Amino acid sequence: MKFIANREELLKALLITSKISPSKSIDMSTTYIKIDLNERGLFFTSTDGKLSIISKVPFIIDDTQIIRDIVYGSTLINAQLFTEIVKRIDGKELSFELIDDSIVKIENEKSDFKLNAIDPNEFHDIDFSFDGVKITLLTKNFIEAINQVSFAVSLNTKDTRQSLGGVNIESVPSKLVFTATDGARLAKKEIYLELDEKINATISAKTLQEVIRTITTENSIDIYINERRALFVLNNTLINASLINESYPSTKNIIPKNFYYTLTVNSNELISAMERVSLFSTERENVIKLTMTNEYVEVSSKSLQVGSAVERIKSFDFNGERLEISFNSEFVKSAIKSLDVEEVTINFLGEMKPFTVVNKDDDSVIQLITPVRTY
Amino acid sequence: MKFIANREELLKALLITSKISPSKSIDMSTTYIKIDLNERGLFFTSTDGKLSIISKVPFIIDDTQIIRDIVYGSTLINAQLFTEIVKRIDGKELSFELIDDSIVKIENEKSDFKLNAIDPNEFHDIDFSFDGVKITLLTKNFIEAINQVSFAVSLNTKDTRQSLGGVNIESVPSKLVFTATDGARLAKKEIYLELDEKINATISAKTLQEVIRTITTENSIDIYINERRALFVLNNTLINASLINESYPSTKNIIPKNFYYTLTVNSNELISAMERVSLFSTERENVIKLTMTNEYVEVSSKSLQVGSAVERIKSFDFNGERLEISFNSEFVKSAIKSLDVEEVTINFLGEMKPFTVVNKDDDSVIQLITPVRTY
Repeated sequence: MKFIANREELLKALLITSKISPSKSIDMSTTYIKIDLNERGLFFTSTDGKLSIISKVPFIIDDTQIIRDIVYGSTLINAQLFTEIVKRIDGKELSFELIDDSIVKIENEKSDFKLNAIDPNEFHDIDFSFDGVKITLLTKNFIEAINQVSFAVSLNTKDTRQSLGGVNIESVPSKLVFTATDGARLAKKEIYLELDEKINATISAKTLQEVIRTITTENSIDIYINERRALFVLNNTLINASLINESYPSTKNIIPKNFYYTLTVNSNELISAMERVSLFSTERENVIKLTMTNEYVEVSSKSLQVGSAVERIKSFDFNGERLEISFNSEFVKSAIKSLDVEEVTINFLGEMKPFTVVNKDDDSVIQLITPVRTY
Repeated sequence: MKFIANREELLKALLITSKISPSKSIDMSTTYIKIDLNERGLFFTSTDGKLSIISKVPFIIDDTQIIRDIVYGSTLINAQLFTEIVKRIDGKELSFELIDDSIVKIENEKSDFKLNAIDPNEFHDIDFSFDGVKITLLTKNFIEAINQVSFAVSLNTKDTRQSLGGVNIESVPSKLVFTATDGARLAKKEIYLELDEKINATISAKTLQEVIRTITTENSIDIYINERRALFVLNNTLINASLINESYPSTKNIIPKNFYYTLTVNSNELISAMERVSLFSTERENVIKLTMTNEYVEVSSKSLQVGSAVERIKSFDFNGERLEISFNSEFVKSAIKSLDVEEVTINFLGEMKPFTVVNKDDDSVIQLITPVRTY
């Protein structure tokens, strides 16, 4: 195998692929990147065992020759080192050559790098076929859905319920529903979509964030889901993500329909006030109290050891009797931020009942949060 | 005690002082900041046990009233929380009031904070008197000297030779000499200075960096050194640093006078080449090889496990026989960077002898590095 390539285009594809390769791993093959040069282009493939990416460098981009002086072939080299070399080496082009199937030479006029290479058959066999139910989404809708729910997954790696580390994607009539929960809060987003076949798949939130980061100029994204994996199809990149092999908890009847109290406030004002008082929520992490009456709305926190803080909310609209409720302010903050709207509405049933954080002009997304008991 | 203060000026003085206060410590008094309001101004004092800072907020700055509605007094409150409150609270002014000697109320129209306060006599007694030998240096010379030597101190906290964690400042006829060494390299800088009295003091490099960071618009800095501590005098801030109470190793005869080989190269070209090849110095951290002849100069590294790299230096001037020498590239890199000059000169005696990195137009600073044996 042999080629001379435009360094910048090589690096672009390489960064997409190699970012998931661990620099050290017990499964040695995951530290390698597979390089294939054939009549369709130059391909980089990497895997971390659960997530696999293949990215293509076309021979020609916008009438510019990107890869020249080609001899087809295939090899495996260390992903992180190869990426670092392409990143650090000077110049517009670099030459790449596989010698005796055991050494890759990467050169320009000033630098000579030699990397140990191994047999490409040592690499994992990865299924990049377009198999399963096909969904097509506008990338902006897909990105919004992931951002509005994925923060709510469980980050507790000791959680035995693996599925809570993932975002559940389920088809219901005319809709695709994205759900995430860590047991104390739940985020739900619906996208309008007509599908003939049923889907119910749970994908690691980290993987979905990785997919989002890989999107560049694509207007829409195709996703093929079968029983084992989801395949995300981007312009020059395919991403294969294993599904979380555990059924997702039912969340159908968790969200209340009617509420007794409604608070509407400016999003930024509430967030700033919570950030200030949370300085004192040292005894129970991030727990603050919200007190609402028709006359005033306050957020507060108290620590016997260090002191206390009270913040008055200037502009609000509250319907209901006086209510005091305590909660993790980080949960409410990320719920509000995910809505990305100037004014937020919070609906309560009572001081120990879950409450919802919503945008009153958009019912496609609901954030549900369980309050915290304080004594 | 009571005052209303300009938030921005308060925060400036507070950030200078509180940055050394640990957020948690066995010595509780170090987590507190002392606040004194008297006829000379508002003063913040903090200490971490070895380093102490007092910073003043004047009542008036440039004809603007900074502090008003004053009742004199003194108290101790948590340094980090107080700083965070002043940082996060909204508005141009805030009011501060000590109630019953046990609670500090910090308020503006939207926020009420209460911080537990304790008796100011619980604070360490710190000597901010102008005692000892006085040195006056231009701040730019002082900063340059510290930056040119302090990187070479030992960062090994397990090193039993405490003094190697400090910069030694010694007076010799007509000069003040700054020295730092970790045993494998040595940095030495001389500043012209006539002094009647003798000085030989070793100060923690971390402390000196802290002093440098605190300098703002000062043109010159006064330093008072006695047997126990150095006192740095800035415009509105005094810094008291304990000396390292251990004699500094003699470094007088370590630097060779004559050399057999001299290499002059472009600083950036050598640094970039070293950065690229150091990718492969994985088996012995950062160790690379420099090969010099009259025809070519190369830096290289090799790892049996992953591969090898060779970089050719384009523009160089070498005098001497062929020489191969191995060293820690990070040491040479920081030595070159400290000189801050376009072209650097490296003087060698032989492959196992210490070599110097210098700016041939400035003999006030010398960087000495011990090579590494390779097999």
